[in-house]
Amino acid sequence: MSSAADSSDAMLEQLIAKEILPQSGNWEGTEEFLNRIVQVLLKYIKDQNDRDQKILEFHHPDKMQMLIDLSIPEKPENLLKLVKGFEAGRFTYEIAPVFILMEKSVMTRMWEAVGWDPEKADGIFAPGGAIANLYAMNAARHQLWPRSKHLGMKDIPTLCCFTSEDSHYSIKSASAVLGIGADYCFNIPTDKNGKMIPEALEAKIIECKKEGLTPFFVCCTAGSTVYGAFDPLENVANICERHKLWFHVDAAWGGGMLLSPEHRYKLAGVERANSVTWNPHKLMGALLQCSACLFRQDGLLFQCNQMSADYLFQQDKPYDVSFDTGDKAIQCGRHNDVFKLWLMWKSKGMEGYRQQINKLMDLANYFTRRIKETQGFELIIENPEFLNICFWYVPSKIRNLEPAEMRARLEKIAPKIKAGMMQRGTTMVGYQPDKQRPNFFRMIISNQAITREDLDFLIKEIVDIGESLE
Amino acid sequence: MSSAADSSDAMLEQLIAKEILPQSGNWEGTEEFLNRIVQVLLKYIKDQNDRDQKILEFHHPDKMQMLIDLSIPEKPENLLKLVKGFEAGRFTYEIAPVFILMEKSVMTRMWEAVGWDPEKADGIFAPGGAIANLYAMNAARHQLWPRSKHLGMKDIPTLCCFTSEDSHYSIKSASAVLGIGADYCFNIPTDKNGKMIPEALEAKIIECKKEGLTPFFVCCTAGSTVYGAFDPLENVANICERHKLWFHVDAAWGGGMLLSPEHRYKLAGVERANSVTWNPHKLMGALLQCSACLFRQDGLLFQCNQMSADYLFQQDKPYDVSFDTGDKAIQCGRHNDVFKLWLMWKSKGMEGYRQQINKLMDLANYFTRRIKETQGFELIIENPEFLNICFWYVPSKIRNLEPAEMRARLEKIAPKIKAGMMQRGTTMVGYQPDKQRPNFFRMIISNQAITREDLDFLIKEIVDIGESLE
Repeated sequence: MSSAADSSDAMLEQLIAKEILPQSGNWEGTEEFLNRIVQVLLKYIKDQNDRDQKILEFHHPDKMQMLIDLSIPEKPENLLKLVKGFEAGRFTYEIAPVFILMEKSVMTRMWEAVGWDPEKADGIFAPGGAIANLYAMNAARHQLWPRSKHLGMKDIPTLCCFTSEDSHYSIKSASAVLGIGADYCFNIPTDKNGKMIPEALEAKIIECKKEGLTPFFVCCTAGSTVYGAFDPLENVANICERHKLWFHVDAAWGGGMLLSPEHRYKLAGVERANSVTWNPHKLMGALLQCSACLFRQDGLLFQCNQMSADYLFQQDKPYDVSFDTGDKAIQCGRHNDVFKLWLMWKSKGMEGYRQQINKLMDLANYFTRRIKETQGFELIIENPEFLNICFWYVPSKIRNLEPAEMRARLEKIAPKIKAGMMQRGTTMVGYQPDKQRPNFFRMIISNQAITREDLDFLIKEIVDIGESLE
Repeated sequence: MSSAADSSDAMLEQLIAKEILPQSGNWEGTEEFLNRIVQVLLKYIKDQNDRDQKILEFHHPDKMQMLIDLSIPEKPENLLKLVKGFEAGRFTYEIAPVFILMEKSVMTRMWEAVGWDPEKADGIFAPGGAIANLYAMNAARHQLWPRSKHLGMKDIPTLCCFTSEDSHYSIKSASAVLGIGADYCFNIPTDKNGKMIPEALEAKIIECKKEGLTPFFVCCTAGSTVYGAFDPLENVANICERHKLWFHVDAAWGGGMLLSPEHRYKLAGVERANSVTWNPHKLMGALLQCSACLFRQDGLLFQCNQMSADYLFQQDKPYDVSFDTGDKAIQCGRHNDVFKLWLMWKSKGMEGYRQQINKLMDLANYFTRRIKETQGFELIIENPEFLNICFWYVPSKIRNLEPAEMRARLEKIAPKIKAGMMQRGTTMVGYQPDKQRPNFFRMIISNQAITREDLDFLIKEIVDIGESLE
C-alpha cells in the first residue's frame, strides 16, 4: 500500500466520520465516498474484462463463507473497512454465489427478527410486495391442496381467504391471479384506528364455512398503506389456529419495526405467522426493489414452485447444489436485490437500524403533536401508531360551514393544495379519500434525513397555500 | 460553458469515438465515459438533496414529450450529446413520469418490430420472462372467461394450454400458479431441430376437446432455451385461428432477432400473436432485469389486473391520468427497468442493434463451422439457426467405444471438462442432458465483445482439457 493511498484513506476516513446522507450537509464526504466506490467498481470492470485475467476463482460455498464474513453485525461496521474489503476480496470468488450467501445472511437476521428458528425457516427475494404476497398465498394453497399445482382448481373445494378492508390491493389481486377469484377474498371491517376487527373475521369465517366454502388463508396487515395500522396479530393467530388456516402477515411496510426493540410490540404475535412479507425497500431505506417473502417452514416453497428444469438445475455440479435457489422461485433469472441491503445493514449493524427507526418514530410523533397544536389541521386517526399521519387542512374560510357543504369543499382542498405544492416545487404530499371521508393528506415519514425543521416548513406551507385558495 | 469544459468535451469525444465496450481495448475511453456519467449523477444527487432547490418542475406529460426527444432513432446518436442532454435536462421534470414516457417510446419500437399498430397495442415491463409469460396467460384466461377474475376457476370449464416440450418451464409454472394446473399444460413434441410439430399440436387440441377440456392458450417459443429453435409461427397461428385459441409467442430469448431485417424471417408470423414476451436483458444486452410482455390489443391488461386501489390511482390528479400505468400491473411499485434500455437503444439506434445482432449471428456461424472442422466435436443440432450451439466433445480415447458405453462415458465428460475450466478459471460453458442424450455443452454467443479469437481459444481449451482426462 503506497503512502499516497494511506493518506487518501485517512482523508476519506475523516470525511465519512460524519453522516454521509446526501441531505446531511456533508457533501464532501458523500461525494468522496461515492467516488471511492466508483473507482472500486471501475477497477472491477476493467479486470473482469481483461482477457488475461481468470474469469473466476472457484470456491465451494462452505469455503466461501469462511473466506468472507457476510454476517450482519450488531454494531455498525466501519465503511472504509467495508470498501477496502471489496478491493481486497473482489477477485477471490465467482460473483453470483456470493449473492446467494448474502441473501441467506440477510434473511437470517430477518427470520430472527420475526422470531423464527433460522435453521427451519425459508424465504425468497421477490420483485416487490405484491409478488411476495402472491408467493405466500400460492404456498398456502399448495400446503392445503398440493394436487392443485398439477390439476388446478377444478376438483378441489371452493377456497376463500380474508384480509382487512384497509389491506393492500395485492391480496385481492393474488386471489384473482391464482384462480381463486377476487370475490372469494373477503374484506374484513376495521375499527376506527384502521385495525382488522377479529370478531368480524371469525364471524365471516364461520359464515363462509356454512355456505360451503373452504377458508384457507388469512392476511393481517402490519402497517397498512393509508393509516399505518397494525392488525391485532395475536388475536388473529388464535382464530387461525382454531380454524386451521394459513396465517400470513403482510408487513411490507411495517416489517422494519421488528428491528426496534422499543416499537416491536406492535407486531407481537408475528412469530406465529406461516409467512411474512417484508419490504426492505420501504422502512429500511433500500432502493426499490428489495422485498422478501419469509416462511416459517422450510421446504414448502420448493415443493410448490419447482418445475424440474433439468437444464438449469443439474445435480451433477461440482458443488453442493442445495445452494441453488432458482427452483424455489416463480421467476427464472432474478435481479440482484440483496447486495444493496446487505451493504447497508452491514455498515449500520442492528444498532444502526434500531436508531434509524426510533428516530423516524420520534419525528412522526413530533409531526403529530405539531399538527394537533396548529389551527385548521384535523387528524383522521387521532393517535397514529406508525409513520403515516393522515389529516385534513381546513382553511379558515370554510371552518364554519355545515357538515355536508364542508365535506364537498374539503374534497377539493387537498388536490388544490397539492397542485399548489407542485407549482411551487417546494414539497409534495399525497392525498386520497376513503370510504367515509373526503380527500385527506397522507404524510409518510420514511426518509431518515428529514428534520423537525422540514416538518415545520411543511406545516407552514400547507397553511400558506390553504389560506390563499379562492 | 467554460473553455475548460469545452476542451474536456473534445477530449471525451475523441476517446469515445472508438468502441467503449470494456473488452474492446479502449479502456481509457470506457473509464472516461463512465466517470463523466458518474459526475452527472453526483451533481444530480447533490442538487436533488439541496433543500434550497425545487423538488420538481412540473410539466404535463404531453408537454414533457415535447421538451425531451425520447424517441428511438434510426441512426446512432452521439453519446456525448446524450450525456450533455442529461446535464441540461435533469432539472426540468419530475423523474418517474419520464420513465413512463420512455417505456412508451421503447415499446413503440418493439410493437413496430413485432409488426403491430402501436396505436392499438399494449404492454408492460415485467420482472423477468417468467412473470411476463404469466401476464400473457392470465390475460388470455381473462379474455375467454372474464368472470374467473372475480369468481375463480370453480364454475368455468377445465382449461388447458399447449407449449413445446423444449419450451421454458415458466409456461408450465404459469399454468400451476394461475390455478389451471401444470398437468393441463401439455407438452407438444418437437422435431429433430427442436421445433414444435404443428400436426402434433392440432392432434392434441382435438383430443383435449374430445375429452371435454377447453383449450385456450398456445405458446410458441422463438429461440428455445437449450437449442435456440424457432417454432413454426405461421403454422401454429393457423391452428390457433381455426380453434380460436390465444396465440402467445415466448420470444424472451429470440425477440431481439426482430431487429435484424436479415434474420427476422425466423419469426415470420409473430405479428399474428395475441401476446409476445421479449427480454431485452438477453439478446439486446440490457442488464438483468429488463423484460417486456407485449399485447396486440390495448385494454385487456388493464381490465384483467386492475383492482381499483383508490388511494393510488386517483382520477382527480392535475394531469392526464391515462399516463398512470400502475393499475395494469400485478406488481405495485416497479423497479425502473426501462432507462438502461432506452439509453442503449437511443445511442445505438435501430441500425446499431441490427449490426450487433448480425455480428453475433456471424460469430455463431463461424463457431459452428470451426466445430464441424475440428476432430472430436459433434453437434447436437446439425445446423443451428440461432446463437445456441450444442455439442459434445468426444475425447480420442473413447471415440471407438460401443454406443452404450460411449453414452455412459459421455455423460461424465462435459461435467469434467467444465470442472477443468472452473479450475483453470479461463472460461465457462454450461452443459445439460436432454431426454435422449447424455450431457452436452450449450454454447451461447450473446456477448457482443466476443471475437473469433475467443472462440478459437475456447475450442482449443476444450480439446486440451478433454484429451487430458483420465
